[in-house]
Amino acid sequence: MNIIPADSSAIGKQIYALIKDLFPICRSITGNGVRQTLKIVGKHIPLSVYEVPTGTQVFDWTVPKEWNIRDAWVKDSRGRKVIDFQKSNLHVVNYSIPFKGKMPLAELEPHLFSLPEHPDWVPYRTTYYKETWGFCLSHNQLRSLEEGDYEVCIDSTLADGSLTFGEYVIPGELKDEILISTHVCHPSLANDNLSGVCTAAFLAKHLADQKLRFSYRFLFIPGTIGAITWLHRNFDEVGRIKHGLVLTGVGDPGGITYKKSRRGDAAIDRAVVHVLRNSADNYSVEDFSPYGYDERQYCSPGFNLPVGRFSRTPYGKYPEYHTSGDNLDFVRVGSLSESVTVLINILGILEGDRTYTNLAPHCEPQLGKRGLYDQIGPNQLAMLWVLNLSDGHHSLLDIAERSKIDFESIREAATVLLKFQLLE
Amino acid sequence: MNIIPADSSAIGKQIYALIKDLFPICRSITGNGVRQTLKIVGKHIPLSVYEVPTGTQVFDWTVPKEWNIRDAWVKDSRGRKVIDFQKSNLHVVNYSIPFKGKMPLAELEPHLFSLPEHPDWVPYRTTYYKETWGFCLSHNQLRSLEEGDYEVCIDSTLADGSLTFGEYVIPGELKDEILISTHVCHPSLANDNLSGVCTAAFLAKHLADQKLRFSYRFLFIPGTIGAITWLHRNFDEVGRIKHGLVLTGVGDPGGITYKKSRRGDAAIDRAVVHVLRNSADNYSVEDFSPYGYDERQYCSPGFNLPVGRFSRTPYGKYPEYHTSGDNLDFVRVGSLSESVTVLINILGILEGDRTYTNLAPHCEPQLGKRGLYDQIGPNQLAMLWVLNLSDGHHSLLDIAERSKIDFESIREAATVLLKFQLLE
Amino acid sequence: MNIIPADSSAIGKQIYALIKDLFPICRSITGNGVRQTLKIVGKHIPLSVYEVPTGTQVFDWTVPKEWNIRDAWVKDSRGRKVIDFQKSNLHVVNYSIPFKGKMPLAELEPHLFSLPEHPDWVPYRTTYYKETWGFCLSHNQLRSLEEGDYEVCIDSTLADGSLTFGEYVIPGELKDEILISTHVCHPSLANDNLSGVCTAAFLAKHLADQKLRFSYRFLFIPGTIGAITWLHRNFDEVGRIKHGLVLTGVGDPGGITYKKSRRGDAAIDRAVVHVLRNSADNYSVEDFSPYGYDERQYCSPGFNLPVGRFSRTPYGKYPEYHTSGDNLDFVRVGSLSESVTVLINILGILEGDRTYTNLAPHCEPQLGKRGLYDQIGPNQLAMLWVLNLSDGHHSLLDIAERSKIDFESIREAATVLLKFQLLE
Repeated sequence: MNIIPADSSAIGKQIYALIKDLFPICRSITGNGVRQTLKIVGKHIPLSVYEVPTGTQVFDWTVPKEWNIRDAWVKDSRGRKVIDFQKSNLHVVNYSIPFKGKMPLAELEPHLFSLPEHPDWVPYRTTYYKETWGFCLSHNQLRSLEEGDYEVCIDSTLADGSLTFGEYVIPGELKDEILISTHVCHPSLANDNLSGVCTAAFLAKHLADQKLRFSYRFLFIPGTIGAITWLHRNFDEVGRIKHGLVLTGVGDPGGITYKKSRRGDAAIDRAVVHVLRNSADNYSVEDFSPYGYDERQYCSPGFNLPVGRFSRTPYGKYPEYHTSGDNLDFVRVGSLSESVTVLINILGILEGDRTYTNLAPHCEPQLGKRGLYDQIGPNQLAMLWVLNLSDGHHSLLDIAERSKIDFESIREAATVLLKFQLLE
Repeated sequence: MNIIPADSSAIGKQIYALIKDLFPICRSITGNGVRQTLKIVGKHIPLSVYEVPTGTQVFDWTVPKEWNIRDAWVKDSRGRKVIDFQKSNLHVVNYSIPFKGKMPLAELEPHLFSLPEHPDWVPYRTTYYKETWGFCLSHNQLRSLEEGDYEVCIDSTLADGSLTFGEYVIPGELKDEILISTHVCHPSLANDNLSGVCTAAFLAKHLADQKLRFSYRFLFIPGTIGAITWLHRNFDEVGRIKHGLVLTGVGDPGGITYKKSRRGDAAIDRAVVHVLRNSADNYSVEDFSPYGYDERQYCSPGFNLPVGRFSRTPYGKYPEYHTSGDNLDFVRVGSLSESVTVLINILGILEGDRTYTNLAPHCEPQLGKRGLYDQIGPNQLAMLWVLNLSDGHHSLLDIAERSKIDFESIREAATVLLKFQLLE
Repeated sequence: MNIIPADSSAIGKQIYALIKDLFPICRSITGNGVRQTLKIVGKHIPLSVYEVPTGTQVFDWTVPKEWNIRDAWVKDSRGRKVIDFQKSNLHVVNYSIPFKGKMPLAELEPHLFSLPEHPDWVPYRTTYYKETWGFCLSHNQLRSLEEGDYEVCIDSTLADGSLTFGEYVIPGELKDEILISTHVCHPSLANDNLSGVCTAAFLAKHLADQKLRFSYRFLFIPGTIGAITWLHRNFDEVGRIKHGLVLTGVGDPGGITYKKSRRGDAAIDRAVVHVLRNSADNYSVEDFSPYGYDERQYCSPGFNLPVGRFSRTPYGKYPEYHTSGDNLDFVRVGSLSESVTVLINILGILEGDRTYTNLAPHCEPQLGKRGLYDQIGPNQLAMLWVLNLSDGHHSLLDIAERSKIDFESIREAATVLLKFQLLE
């Protein structure tokens, strides 16, 4: 089995269009923003949506109260809205408790957050586990606020409800699974992480109609608490996950960055590195560290799953990160196209990697009499490598790595040799 | 036991003289050329010559018909021989079927082969497994051919017969063997592989009178089909081969190139690298790959023998390769001398490598009271290393590698310590 | 448990003062010089002093006769003392037999040793295992000697007696020991090895009052024969030594040099490298070799103890080595202070290194609800690393190495996590 390549330019445009649809929604780790997002994603792939009640104990954590927001603003003494949630949902500190009041600027200021080093951008802030409220605004806006009394309104609710996540399983020939996990909890931020959400959606759609060896599980979950909740609910079945990727920040103009799983030499780690080495101009590979996205949970020592993180520029390494600068202009169709193409190539290796046995292991078989040996060229060399290393101990990926020939050529050589009954 | 060094300049001259004797003969993978070659080699060492009938099944291969050639030429319309086998046996595509005919240039041309990038050289071509005929000539010759009818004669035979190979075994103290294999199937090409054939012959002659630990098996065999035939006939005994080298292209002016065995860390690999590191100015070491000379067969997965390849400039990396440029001028006495000296040093390590146990392992023995400790110098340091690492787990080669002291000094230190009963 | 840091400037000065006290004494591998030295050291730490009789068999060696010296001189024909032991004990070749006589310069000269390349310095020489006599003098002195008869007196004794060594054991919670071994046999040489002797003494004194996990064994022994004697007497108990250092040449102005144990990857090797990498500006790490100081004996194959060597500039790599140039000016308080500080940090790692198990291994525990998670910073990162790798297979030192965070931060993070019952 081999994964059919996607029309990478077309799929990049489709991903971008979905990012655009989802961009305005105010998401958080719970609430209607996630539901609305999953509903739209569900138009492209048949998502199962799960609701986990507030208060559910998940390992060391508790599913929090559900947060929803309708409106929020700050008016100056002349009644003008100087901060307005309707213009950008980043203006409200995510998970702000309901609040109404009037106060002088000095009292308001501790609740205002800006970025002096990027005076035009609005920062993104959250207060998930501390019940307080706040507003984010550009530093220029902040500096223009005059002395006087301000009226503040946060029309939100924080109450018992549930945590929502989406899941889509594509069954393959095996019960063994490949996990693709992406966080769905950030509001109007395009790269982090609508790029991951929408790339996962279209990658799933691309795979859905194909004949697959592995089963694929796509998770659209709130960061941290969502991954923890999912792992808790699926505790007995995580052993099925043979390979996995956390997908995030895959649309920015930087090169691809792969962060290895805690194991460091899992097949997923080797497959990603192989594809990047053979196809990407500009990429980097990082060792595992216990800080980052949901790979933290999948790679916690009790699970130690073979899950790496696939991104472009890592979080915190681009100034637009967690600001209003991470908008629809920051994300590029070309980057999305490359990301999805590389992902398909990675999955192609995982699908196609096998360990064969040479059925004519004593000396070389006579390729010439089978018409397999003309002038020595890349194909013949790939065949010789497959024959030489197919001793039951080397998989095709092992052979690709040792021969420094790309996996696809090695796989094709193996296919030909299988046809001629030289391998089994 | 230690191998006695050769007079490297004298042995180099002897090798060169034998190359000169064998150069004119038209060899192929079967036929009288090989027989004649083995007969001349047999004047220097007592070769056993074997004949394997056409049609014998050897693994996936079949011993081919025997090819012999008496004459071949192309005459132009004025009756002049424009291509003449008597001038160089490279002019006929090796294994060309018998042919007589008259044809215009246009019909002849698909049977003519030249090297446009080296217009003065005649290429070397074969057609072992496809029954056809052809001529090789210099590109300048080709361009000078005028329109008109040409008379073609190939006075060859391709008929049931046998494949011929030679073998010489020097028995040592052990039944364990060191294999030296060299291909004997190329016609008038000096470096590839008369240099290998004649170096093997004089290396064997040098070893013949010595007291040896290992038994040595020298093979003079046609490339590919010869190695396959030999492995098939000796299937039950290949386990005796503890170390081996394929010898080819050891007379050109370039530096020594060693290609590791498939295992990559076999004793032969480590011994060759140790000698090269300590004695050669200009050398390179390559990892195994399944393309090349007969190491392909010895290192096929069903055998996986510890056999590397010892060459100077690798095939295909010098323009003279497989052309009339690979002639008696291309091969140098100095290169042959160095090759054989390095080979003797390599065999010296394999002969001398042992794992000893320090009989006074608690603290250092008092070397001074035995007169073994004067001023600290290279010899004392070698003794201290041998004592320190002779714990039953490190061989002398291991100690040489870890201490960065040459094997010979380590071996001498061990000899002294054995004499003083400090090792066993 | 954690080792309390020393006031490094104060301890450096104390070490220097003790070096100054011990400098004038004429020490050797046996005799009163060692006894007098151990008596003075014994004012600072409660040393046990052992006497081993001449003739005692210790492995391959025999405890030699005891050597003592009262005076020695050479007088010229006018009765002037041209060489005088009273001015410097280096003037007599150590272990010179008693001798009185008169002889012309030509006869005396084979008994005189100087350093032409450093004409102002007096070399240090010994003749432990060859009964002869000699004098050392500066090359300028040697050249000023006029023809004529010289009177020679060496008022020494070489007779049955004993070999003396000192030992101080600080009991810890465990019977497992950390060995600190230092040679005490050199006469008036400051760096080699009063620096080692006095640093060991004050390191021991610093540890004496602390609550320690390991037991510590400090050895003040003659080089070579002393270490061999100690190992012989303690043959059945050396298995207690879990880590060890030979201390020598720790006061010169050069950077710290660590020579690894024969094992190469023992905990002591990794702990030293970790501390040097994190705290020293200028250091080097050498692989084990079987030449040097008493690590030769501890690392002989019958023992193979995890004992490395801690020095500053290695022996033989500074011109003052084994000459009168290695005097009280050559040794610096700053170097001694740094050496002892680094040693305390190394012992801190050995004391503090543990392997814990994360008690909440499934996903991350919620640090926030315990007040352990504020802004991500170095401390939080250390906590996440400890949680992630505390799977029963990684010690804190392993975690420090993998995370590239200094051991102390990792240890502190573990302490906090233990307090919150997240580790055991």
